[in-house]
Amino acid sequence: MVKQKLMIPGPVSLTPEVLQEMARPLIGHRTPDFEEILIKCWDNMKEIMRTKNDIILITGSGTAGMDAAIASTIEEGDECVCIMGGKFGERMADIVRSYGGIPREVKVDWGKGVDPDDVERVVEESDAKAITLTHNETSTGVIHDAKAIGEIAQKHGLLFIMDGITSVGGDLVEVDRWGVDICIVGSQKCLAAPPGLAMLSVSEDAWGVISNNNTRNFYLNLASYKKSLKKNTTPFTPSVSLVYGLSKALDAVLKEGMENRIQRHRTLAKATREAVKAMNLELFADEKVASNTVTSIRIPEKLTDEDVRGRMKREFGILLAGGQAQVKGKIFRIGHMGNVDYLDLLTVLSALEIVLKKSGHGLVLGEGVSAAQEIISNEIG
Amino acid sequence: MVKQKLMIPGPVSLTPEVLQEMARPLIGHRTPDFEEILIKCWDNMKEIMRTKNDIILITGSGTAGMDAAIASTIEEGDECVCIMGGKFGERMADIVRSYGGIPREVKVDWGKGVDPDDVERVVEESDAKAITLTHNETSTGVIHDAKAIGEIAQKHGLLFIMDGITSVGGDLVEVDRWGVDICIVGSQKCLAAPPGLAMLSVSEDAWGVISNNNTRNFYLNLASYKKSLKKNTTPFTPSVSLVYGLSKALDAVLKEGMENRIQRHRTLAKATREAVKAMNLELFADEKVASNTVTSIRIPEKLTDEDVRGRMKREFGILLAGGQAQVKGKIFRIGHMGNVDYLDLLTVLSALEIVLKKSGHGLVLGEGVSAAQEIISNEIG
Repeated sequence: MVKQKLMIPGPVSLTPEVLQEMARPLIGHRTPDFEEILIKCWDNMKEIMRTKNDIILITGSGTAGMDAAIASTIEEGDECVCIMGGKFGERMADIVRSYGGIPREVKVDWGKGVDPDDVERVVEESDAKAITLTHNETSTGVIHDAKAIGEIAQKHGLLFIMDGITSVGGDLVEVDRWGVDICIVGSQKCLAAPPGLAMLSVSEDAWGVISNNNTRNFYLNLASYKKSLKKNTTPFTPSVSLVYGLSKALDAVLKEGMENRIQRHRTLAKATREAVKAMNLELFADEKVASNTVTSIRIPEKLTDEDVRGRMKREFGILLAGGQAQVKGKIFRIGHMGNVDYLDLLTVLSALEIVLKKSGHGLVLGEGVSAAQEIISNEIG
Repeated sequence: MVKQKLMIPGPVSLTPEVLQEMARPLIGHRTPDFEEILIKCWDNMKEIMRTKNDIILITGSGTAGMDAAIASTIEEGDECVCIMGGKFGERMADIVRSYGGIPREVKVDWGKGVDPDDVERVVEESDAKAITLTHNETSTGVIHDAKAIGEIAQKHGLLFIMDGITSVGGDLVEVDRWGVDICIVGSQKCLAAPPGLAMLSVSEDAWGVISNNNTRNFYLNLASYKKSLKKNTTPFTPSVSLVYGLSKALDAVLKEGMENRIQRHRTLAKATREAVKAMNLELFADEKVASNTVTSIRIPEKLTDEDVRGRMKREFGILLAGGQAQVKGKIFRIGHMGNVDYLDLLTVLSALEIVLKKSGHGLVLGEGVSAAQEIISNEIG
């Protein structure tokens, strides 16, 4: 028998406690009891994101959150500086475009970090209202320097809209210090909650823009959510079961403590990188800007995606993520976010060694695992 | 001790089997295993809605489904005949307006059924592209004649967009025979699945309009969902846990059989109506068009909402729904949809008698209950 292991960059495996929470009987969504759960989620999210801003909860995927952020701030004809460099950075520009906005693209090679000077140049050349950044670009395994982008936004008086979907809860995000006006979070990533909820922190400056925005939409209009905030509710029926799960997941995040949690993710990432190098694999992302929640790795030239991911799934029940768009079939990705612990990672790495060797890739069994063990060994008490 | 009972028109109580299903470990959402679950949900929805049309699944509330239907078909300047008569009928017009469409409103007094002649007149006076109907108007407890509206739409070559959120799975809905081009369903109502999923059936005619539509939106753009249908997936991460729950709930719907299920809802509704009349209460909705999934009742003049709903919750743990908008504080509503059985209803009615009597309303204890018993007694074998 082979146990199934989810090692994709979200949805991530949930703890039995979070899963069981979703099995609780439903209660009315307009009751004081549910209000209490919502308020606790909002407060905990503020702590996790280091912000005093309002938190909005939307039933929908992370993309629903991205859509809500853009639709509520960008009007037809508005320019918006969009930092590209991966599938999700591109999606943000697509959303701007879909609402009639004009994305001023900052090109970034896939796998590289954005150069703040490039951003500043595009900002100066354009008449933009906002800058969008995908903080942690899941498709390439890169984390961008959000603080530097926040400074540029502040200097030029632009809104800073950050997709923190795969960073919040796993890596350092300081919404208030970095001046993030809208930070978008997905439930099913580093927070290790079930998929289906998007959350957004919204600054006073952003509310100002939103209240004057004329973009046409309904379900994803943040102005409606703001009105409901006063009554501690949501404008449309929230997924009560998912909110139960989220609430339990956030308890676990804060019980671990954000500092410990970030350190765990960084150790997992470093161990992964050292291990794959010791397996004669090439990291796809520039190591200086490598993500701490997902690692992208080139598929060796003589091997196929099937040789790596197909075999991992078939033989060991481990689901890894493939490459998307321009890197489809060229890279694979290991998600090490949420509830992944050191032994989960060592397990995956040991399976990967076996699979690569069987598929004809040159490596010495155990060398990758021991490189990871070194990192982990240095980390623990 | 008092057990909590959810008797609102959704979210409804779920069976332990459906609740437990949500506690299953997550699997990858782009895997053959998940594909299989999705396809089964789609097929079962087709059977429940009596249609061969495509089924689209969106992570979001029922309103997300309404938004997707309108945003994907109505462009700026398009006229749309909107049948009003309740909060949700009005919401449909609001959504049309929010996308720059022009609602041609067919006024209907709250609590009354729409007169098809009124619809035809507005259709003839306008240059509309579509007709919207809230099949079962939850806010007033009225079910409208969808078949008649479908005929008008067909005769005039208009799209027929129907909100079936609180009818599908509880009352008769014949999407293909009635010519419903887009039928919107919510998971948390008559289907007795967890809240957070919207589904839409989309006809070939509707796809034709959608493919030529230029409304600007992203997450709720049905064209993206159509593209993903070919690959048996959704364009954005679906809520895997909710889909597990939905799948189990649909199994239960089909195990009961739609004919039995509709009959049960009709019996529950009739028993409720007879009981409340025997309690000297006044039905709010015209009995000829009274909903089979929710019953709306006037609060007696000398009583307040607190006297009825407050006391029901406090003393017996039963959550009933209040009136919304113009009937706030004037009516209360009993949801008898989803998994509500005959004994659940008798329980609620017996509690209601006690509460009303305690609050000073004139009635004879047991008369309402026995009226309901009569109806149920005639129904069973």
